[in-house]
Amino acid sequence: MDFWRATTLEEQIDTAMGRQEADLVLKGGNVFNVFLKTWEVADVAISGSKIVGIGQYKGRQEIDVKGLYLTPGLMDAHVHFESSMLSPREMVKVLLLNGVTGAITDPHEITNVLGEKGLRFMLDETANIPFSAYLMIPSCVPATDMDTSGARITPEDMEHIRKLSPRILGLAEMMNFPGILGKQQNEMNKMKLFYNQKVDGHAPGLSGKELNAYVAAGITTEHECVTPAEAWEKVRRGMYVFMREGSAAHNLVDLLPLLKKPGNRRLCLCTDDRHADDLIEQGSINYLLEIGVAQGYDPEDLIPMATLNIAECYGLKHVGALAPGYVADIAVFENLQSFQPVHVIKGGVQVVKNRKLLWKSDPVLEPPGQSMNMRPATVEDFRIPAKKNKKLRVIGISQTQLLTSELHLTPTVQNGEAVSDIGRDILKMAVFERHHNTGNIGLGFAFGFGLKKGAIATTVGHDSHNLSVVGTNDEDMAVAVNRLREIGGGLIVVSDGEVRATVPLAIAGLMSDRDAMAVNSQIKQLNFWLKELGVPEEYSTFMILAFTSLPVIPELRLTDRGLVDVVHFEHVDLWCE
Amino acid sequence: MDFWRATTLEEQIDTAMGRQEADLVLKGGNVFNVFLKTWEVADVAISGSKIVGIGQYKGRQEIDVKGLYLTPGLMDAHVHFESSMLSPREMVKVLLLNGVTGAITDPHEITNVLGEKGLRFMLDETANIPFSAYLMIPSCVPATDMDTSGARITPEDMEHIRKLSPRILGLAEMMNFPGILGKQQNEMNKMKLFYNQKVDGHAPGLSGKELNAYVAAGITTEHECVTPAEAWEKVRRGMYVFMREGSAAHNLVDLLPLLKKPGNRRLCLCTDDRHADDLIEQGSINYLLEIGVAQGYDPEDLIPMATLNIAECYGLKHVGALAPGYVADIAVFENLQSFQPVHVIKGGVQVVKNRKLLWKSDPVLEPPGQSMNMRPATVEDFRIPAKKNKKLRVIGISQTQLLTSELHLTPTVQNGEAVSDIGRDILKMAVFERHHNTGNIGLGFAFGFGLKKGAIATTVGHDSHNLSVVGTNDEDMAVAVNRLREIGGGLIVVSDGEVRATVPLAIAGLMSDRDAMAVNSQIKQLNFWLKELGVPEEYSTFMILAFTSLPVIPELRLTDRGLVDVVHFEHVDLWCE
Repeated sequence: MDFWRATTLEEQIDTAMGRQEADLVLKGGNVFNVFLKTWEVADVAISGSKIVGIGQYKGRQEIDVKGLYLTPGLMDAHVHFESSMLSPREMVKVLLLNGVTGAITDPHEITNVLGEKGLRFMLDETANIPFSAYLMIPSCVPATDMDTSGARITPEDMEHIRKLSPRILGLAEMMNFPGILGKQQNEMNKMKLFYNQKVDGHAPGLSGKELNAYVAAGITTEHECVTPAEAWEKVRRGMYVFMREGSAAHNLVDLLPLLKKPGNRRLCLCTDDRHADDLIEQGSINYLLEIGVAQGYDPEDLIPMATLNIAECYGLKHVGALAPGYVADIAVFENLQSFQPVHVIKGGVQVVKNRKLLWKSDPVLEPPGQSMNMRPATVEDFRIPAKKNKKLRVIGISQTQLLTSELHLTPTVQNGEAVSDIGRDILKMAVFERHHNTGNIGLGFAFGFGLKKGAIATTVGHDSHNLSVVGTNDEDMAVAVNRLREIGGGLIVVSDGEVRATVPLAIAGLMSDRDAMAVNSQIKQLNFWLKELGVPEEYSTFMILAFTSLPVIPELRLTDRGLVDVVHFEHVDLWCE
Repeated sequence: MDFWRATTLEEQIDTAMGRQEADLVLKGGNVFNVFLKTWEVADVAISGSKIVGIGQYKGRQEIDVKGLYLTPGLMDAHVHFESSMLSPREMVKVLLLNGVTGAITDPHEITNVLGEKGLRFMLDETANIPFSAYLMIPSCVPATDMDTSGARITPEDMEHIRKLSPRILGLAEMMNFPGILGKQQNEMNKMKLFYNQKVDGHAPGLSGKELNAYVAAGITTEHECVTPAEAWEKVRRGMYVFMREGSAAHNLVDLLPLLKKPGNRRLCLCTDDRHADDLIEQGSINYLLEIGVAQGYDPEDLIPMATLNIAECYGLKHVGALAPGYVADIAVFENLQSFQPVHVIKGGVQVVKNRKLLWKSDPVLEPPGQSMNMRPATVEDFRIPAKKNKKLRVIGISQTQLLTSELHLTPTVQNGEAVSDIGRDILKMAVFERHHNTGNIGLGFAFGFGLKKGAIATTVGHDSHNLSVVGTNDEDMAVAVNRLREIGGGLIVVSDGEVRATVPLAIAGLMSDRDAMAVNSQIKQLNFWLKELGVPEEYSTFMILAFTSLPVIPELRLTDRGLVDVVHFEHVDLWCE
């Protein structure tokens, strides 16, 4: 791949005027005008990294795009790269292949594990690449004080972090909306600090006066809307609403009717969390466009939500349109139903040619180092002595939503110990603190995982990302924990004392340092073995497990410090009357 | 008028939540939602200077606005305050009475007279007032090198000027578009300096590759469009287009059809140049809304052009909408045909109540000092010895446009001198340099002013603002010049050696230090005396005279350094074959 050369303003003017040949011309395509929502057959002339003219131009390099459709490079308004389990650079490769040339990212997960070092890793790995990765500073590190996170980011830390790079645009999703409404000092300090920058929101269902207060505090984006009415109230009150279609959350189709209303300049598209396999097999924001078109919406109305609207929302100049002075980020499509790009130009450089990626990079340049700081597990760690005449507080898993329920069940006891019961689908679960070698181990039981043998474990565990394990027997659970400890984290399936499949996630226990195709194969292998262990194919077992330790979603969760009753926001005992 | 008190974020949240009474509530009006272009019957709750809630609220102070229409305070996207001849503070008073609470101003005229001192005067006089005056740094001081301006602003000067205040948003209208297309070093330096800020445009008729080049250079607004096709091409290429309705330029009705197209979020309203009498008798941006409604357009489509679109164009956060977190700038109208506001709230404070202004201020706080630096004139200064067998180059005035023509006419000679000839309507004209006491006097003749006796003079003379005088006899011309010199500049009518009417413009010879009503009376008196001297009522004599010295509009102009052939851009002799 040729890297772009910097051109002077004088050269750009000469190129625009046709006095000198452009560096690159896309000849004769259907050029989308995002301002007018129209198409224009024209050449796009590029000088260095910038578009300088739309019209008739000659170039030293020319790409024939006659009959093809050119749009601004797509953007994702809100995405956690970590959710893909791909390294930032592998994620970028997949995004470029999908026509996505920029994203507003929130490195919430890695920062909860590694703190500022994690954020800097994301910043450094996305520097000087053919992709515009903007970062929001995670607002909630840790998310709660009910468990043990890897790090803590205070408002004072944020004050210097936000000066690290012009790619840092503000404060990431403020999930602690009760903290805002309740005027918690820490949250107030953050809002004051970012008053003149962008602050993203996360306030599912907030309405009326509470919404007024949340928005008045300076929070002006929202990606958690599930109904048009909710979204519409939020736009009405001044928010940009992002329609989300992630691997788990599917809100796009419900919200698309809003696109027909005059406020549609305040609507954007985002994926939030999207796994490697979905990204590779379905796509990213381009997949959202495909859904929109399939639902009968005009591509001319959909594309601004993935381009200009996002640029306006975040105050990004020179991005999001095909017009003179704009950065030459361009996706070239064969038709307006399947948005798999034929070519992609990023900053004036062709990065995808005939659906092949031209940009080469190792998955990781500078790994952030080891994140597993815990002693090995023994089978003894999993022992739960039975208590007479007491019942177990069991986490009731749902396979269709992240909410859990608190169940009070009679334990199955063997040799004086409460044990997993495959027949009743009540399995032992444990959460090992893995950041500070505290030795914390939370023990409990979960109903509904469907595992018939063996054990599974993961170091992806929102938001503190301790090591969660669930299994049919203590031996396999110990093997799973210890193997993850050895390989630096990941996802694992164990049975009969043997490791059956792993997705090693050497980067903070969250992301792989392998290439995207390898990760995709590992995930397939993992899913194969999950099925072998009796889990129905339609279950999102690892995703469910990753949220079983998040003590902010009702009702009952297991952390490294034991069970949490999220309704009353307090630690509770495993045993009850 | 009570000034607003600063409230804390905590108080704002408590007010939004309804936990404490608001400082001010506008009760039960029809509240315009600029995002959705809809109306909502609701209370608007204000804490300090900010709107914190739309809904049902109680306030320590309440204003009953039932049945009335609330819009965001109107804004003017581009205005030269000097054109009103009112001091900045008097201008603001008139604007507030018209529901205008903010404006993007270009202090082009005063800066051409007083340089940075003039710009600072505009900045200081608009500080700490109930009005948001944003400033763009004049890009063309001087406009040309064909005459003598009061000052020069270099790119180096701009570098420190732009840091003077956060109200300085960028570079004002770049009139020197040939300089941009021709890559003049000075203009290139300015564009590089302001690459990340806003640069306003001024490029009438520019199209195709020239437009590409102009926009690629970083210029992204335009207020000179006269046809929908021109405006549409400019929006297509990424510009914001301002529909203008000034005292002289009337483009609004021609451009309004664009409002029906999808690109209307890129359209704004501006007045550019509007005189005191028009402001007082017709209004400002509110008058443009009236025109739009009278032409059959929906107020819901028109209002965003005077509010949110301008805020987005200039990247102004917290302005341009009625929503939580936005500055409480609100205009309250009785109906949606006549946009003369009943009440106006600026920054949470009622500044207009029942159509009366509550804000009190002297017209000027700190006058910038004397700007007339020239010796007195004598009748000898006006003598033009006749040349045998030669013709005069005469400036042919048009009463309908600013273009002039170059006429070659036989002089009327008395006592060996070329003199004014009332019968042929060929009048002597002179331009006195008034900034640096150079003694420069340009002499010439003009056809078409229609004056039957006496003389008229003005220190408003674009863009260098020297003293221009035209008259039927040398004696009255000398009286006019000397009186303007004594009073510090202004407009004047003289006949029979007597001063008949003046509009003293003590501020840089451009603006009055009197209140708006006094200025309006003086203008009426001036117009009465113009009529007495034989000038038809429909002539815009003083405006025409103010442009007769501007050596950038074809064909022939008179400067302090003599006649300029604007077609060939060179000085020419008064006499020709």
